Amino acid sequence: MCRWIAYRGEPIALERYVTAPSHSLVEQSIRALEATASTNGDGFGLGWYGDHGEPGLYREVRPAWSDENLRHLCRHIRSHMFFAHVRAATGTPTTRPNCHPFAHRNWLFMHNGFIGDWSLIRRKVEALIPDAYYASRVGTTDSEAVFLAILGAGVDKDPLRATVETLYALTDLVRASGTPEPLRFTSSLSDGRNLYAFRYVYNGKSNTLYYREAAGSVVVASEPLDTERDFWKPVPENHVLISREGQRVTLVPFEEIVAPQRVAAE
Amino acid sequence: MCRWIAYRGEPIALERYVTAPSHSLVEQSIRALEATASTNGDGFGLGWYGDHGEPGLYREVRPAWSDENLRHLCRHIRSHMFFAHVRAATGTPTTRPNCHPFAHRNWLFMHNGFIGDWSLIRRKVEALIPDAYYASRVGTTDSEAVFLAILGAGVDKDPLRATVETLYALTDLVRASGTPEPLRFTSSLSDGRNLYAFRYVYNGKSNTLYYREAAGSVVVASEPLDTERDFWKPVPENHVLISREGQRVTLVPFEEIVAPQRVAAE
Amino acid sequence: MCRWIAYRGEPIALERYVTAPSHSLVEQSIRALEATASTNGDGFGLGWYGDHGEPGLYREVRPAWSDENLRHLCRHIRSHMFFAHVRAATGTPTTRPNCHPFAHRNWLFMHNGFIGDWSLIRRKVEALIPDAYYASRVGTTDSEAVFLAILGAGVDKDPLRATVETLYALTDLVRASGTPEPLRFTSSLSDGRNLYAFRYVYNGKSNTLYYREAAGSVVVASEPLDTERDFWKPVPENHVLISREGQRVTLVPFEEIVAPQRVAAE
Amino acid sequence: MCRWIAYRGEPIALERYVTAPSHSLVEQSIRALEATASTNGDGFGLGWYGDHGEPGLYREVRPAWSDENLRHLCRHIRSHMFFAHVRAATGTPTTRPNCHPFAHRNWLFMHNGFIGDWSLIRRKVEALIPDAYYASRVGTTDSEAVFLAILGAGVDKDPLRATVETLYALTDLVRASGTPEPLRFTSSLSDGRNLYAFRYVYNGKSNTLYYREAAGSVVVASEPLDTERDFWKPVPENHVLISREGQRVTLVPFEEIVAPQRVAAE
Repeated sequence: MCRWIAYRGEPIALERYVTAPSHSLVEQSIRALEATASTNGDGFGLGWYGDHGEPGLYREVRPAWSDENLRHLCRHIRSHMFFAHVRAATGTPTTRPNCHPFAHRNWLFMHNGFIGDWSLIRRKVEALIPDAYYASRVGTTDSEAVFLAILGAGVDKDPLRATVETLYALTDLVRASGTPEPLRFTSSLSDGRNLYAFRYVYNGKSNTLYYREAAGSVVVASEPLDTERDFWKPVPENHVLISREGQRVTLVPFEEIVAPQRVAAE
Repeated sequence: MCRWIAYRGEPIALERYVTAPSHSLVEQSIRALEATASTNGDGFGLGWYGDHGEPGLYREVRPAWSDENLRHLCRHIRSHMFFAHVRAATGTPTTRPNCHPFAHRNWLFMHNGFIGDWSLIRRKVEALIPDAYYASRVGTTDSEAVFLAILGAGVDKDPLRATVETLYALTDLVRASGTPEPLRFTSSLSDGRNLYAFRYVYNGKSNTLYYREAAGSVVVASEPLDTERDFWKPVPENHVLISREGQRVTLVPFEEIVAPQRVAAE
Repeated sequence: MCRWIAYRGEPIALERYVTAPSHSLVEQSIRALEATASTNGDGFGLGWYGDHGEPGLYREVRPAWSDENLRHLCRHIRSHMFFAHVRAATGTPTTRPNCHPFAHRNWLFMHNGFIGDWSLIRRKVEALIPDAYYASRVGTTDSEAVFLAILGAGVDKDPLRATVETLYALTDLVRASGTPEPLRFTSSLSDGRNLYAFRYVYNGKSNTLYYREAAGSVVVASEPLDTERDFWKPVPENHVLISREGQRVTLVPFEEIVAPQRVAAE
Repeated sequence: MCRWIAYRGEPIALERYVTAPSHSLVEQSIRALEATASTNGDGFGLGWYGDHGEPGLYREVRPAWSDENLRHLCRHIRSHMFFAHVRAATGTPTTRPNCHPFAHRNWLFMHNGFIGDWSLIRRKVEALIPDAYYASRVGTTDSEAVFLAILGAGVDKDPLRATVETLYALTDLVRASGTPEPLRFTSSLSDGRNLYAFRYVYNGKSNTLYYREAAGSVVVASEPLDTERDFWKPVPENHVLISREGQRVTLVPFEEIVAPQRVAAE
């Protein structure tokens, strides 16, 4: 039950949200409030866009709270779009390639959730990854497999449709596996220009997801980063938050992206 | 505010106390009950005696709860005397040489506590270490410095006196520094045959320390490892617990080891 | 181009071969002689059998030469059968689950070699792993996939046949992929009682593999551990070395294990 | 026998010198040419100046050649002044605080060398550190102690004099200790605006140190980063290289900084 934040807006130092706030992400690594696992000490990661099309990555297996490098990097790296994630492992080993975010070409992705019973559907989820992307699987998490499946579902052409169709395919796999376990998915995806954040659940209660909008910027987070709770609005279930440059945030229900009959048809 | 356990008795696998109990030390690494810092995720260590006079050591900077190696070693290593420690750092970096226990020749030592304001008295504590032991200072913690000071105070001749005199010297340094910070010291020391555990405080409330005795064995722990609270007895403040082969545990007040007038004289 | 050693015989401390000899495995981690990559600094691992049916494992991402824990463990752990491995990565990340040896139930396996062009045949090799073993895939190396394929090919019933048939299946995959890259395989496998070491090549020159036999014990190694070269005999290509308790070492050509026509038939 | 590079000039991505050249620093981590220890795999570090007066730091215990984070950071971080260092330990543990460079306020320092017999003079070198800087000693290397001594010798007022006087004090300590071991010192120091690089030896042969100057920039390195050897000039022994903004590099002998009679007087 990880915690993450995503930011899009004017270039700022990462510390503004990762280390500085009263309930910053690093603070949440040692004491999360709205999660069942209160400690998120199984590694962490940063992803950010700068001068290159491809994002930078910094991932480490140590807890975020004791990593001196993290404080230096958050103070010195500025970005208009960055992701940060603290991990609470749910079965896969604590290795750097298993830490979020994941990057591929210009795409960045991170996830907090649970994909049914992973041991039951792992092979089928991995089979969703086209050959062209399979060599990029360097870890063993469900999250990385889902990311590569989304890429392979046509992310360049239509990232919203690629993600929601992949989620529906995952839902089918979880349902068919017969597990009582839920499919919980609160994720963030970016191509370096636009920010998308998804909140979805099948078979249970969804994980929390909030956003706070200001003039020209938005921060999305698993839980509010400060005590000004009024400024933090929940992303509704089965919706995607869209933040594009020069536009206000919009919230779009999944059924406007992929027609529901498609789901029924499967 | 670390947590630790020490065992002396019939040779057993380390897992018996480190990983198996309901409130095992590894469980305490992620959720301690009687401590102010509830997470002890800043590294850990094992020390154990086997066929050699010198103990074995395994120390790691990752949290104990996610270390696969730890589970293997606790399952496979058997010992008649072992120490295990999970660390919550109080200012010094998370490095292996800063993890407990510390070993030197046949001696093993670990500590949970606080030595006043370390920045005020560090040089003076380091000056307590004789030259012969200073090359063995491979970390930067107060605990390692205190261990080396105890060694230098004549541990081979009289380990109880060496420890209590060092504690009184530390008390003088803390008092003279003018800090309102306490000197809390709950430590374990062994030469491979006998086990000594100390509980001491100056300027505040002491850390908890318990022991559980059975036929021919004793386990000492920062907090009970199971719910059978009746079997766990506290070590009284300013006392040392002594466990020697073939003898029952004894509890000796510090003033029987070093005459109180010595303290007054300083 | 990793380096490894395997030992079977009277219980001895691991240091006897891992750290003590003039050209010990740890020495080979920083300066191998008969390998193209002279530094093997991408992690290492120990596997050993003790009181349990299941072996113990210690794997680390740091170079073997600077790991203080390794020296302690090699000094304190005694075993009648142990494996040790230093890694030079060939494309997969430096993570603990990617370090050798690999363990499953009572089986232990390690490998030095190259399985054609891994990106071309990875999915096909992973498809050789039966479902029952796929949940045990915690890393991303070719070596771990091959181990799980061997387990799935009936290792409990006939470990020699399971291994050679898997090697022939791999050969078919490499040949069919059209790569000019070789399939080099020098591996060690044990069930805790018997030791098997394989030396095989398709499409090139095989890696070196030597053994040294003494009264009641054998050590197999990628390269000799000392300067007494006369005592080290090469394992011939496409042979398996077999060491069983109370018996002398035997060397068996692969064609005596799986009939060659089977290969031709494919 | 570490390897390092320092850069001052137009802001560039760190990869330009750290990872890209044919004989880049990362390449030198696995295969140095002009050093006695050809592998520099005991950790590494980056220090760079950006928008803040205080430099950023990234230090890791793993070898530079296998660190994915390092490649990302070198690609994304741009700086007008940066240091990079790969370490071959000479006795002190492989921990992050023992990796170079070291930072304090706006000062950055790194070192390749050997300070006599460290076990003989360690206490005396640490005694050179004023109380005001002693709390900043977070590691156990000779190099960090020398840096803090230089800071305490008046680095803000006159960095050249502070360094050379500290070197002469070290020389006195090494000489008085009676060791036949040399004092070798090739170091880089910066306040964020000016770059100083020192090459000094007492009692033996000095380590190599080169620089390459171009329009408005200079790179100083333990050994040339490419095969254009004609462009790389050695820094003469007992000289300091000075690079200030808008000025060409100058080379100043130590005796112009601190009068030689001062040395004789001691």
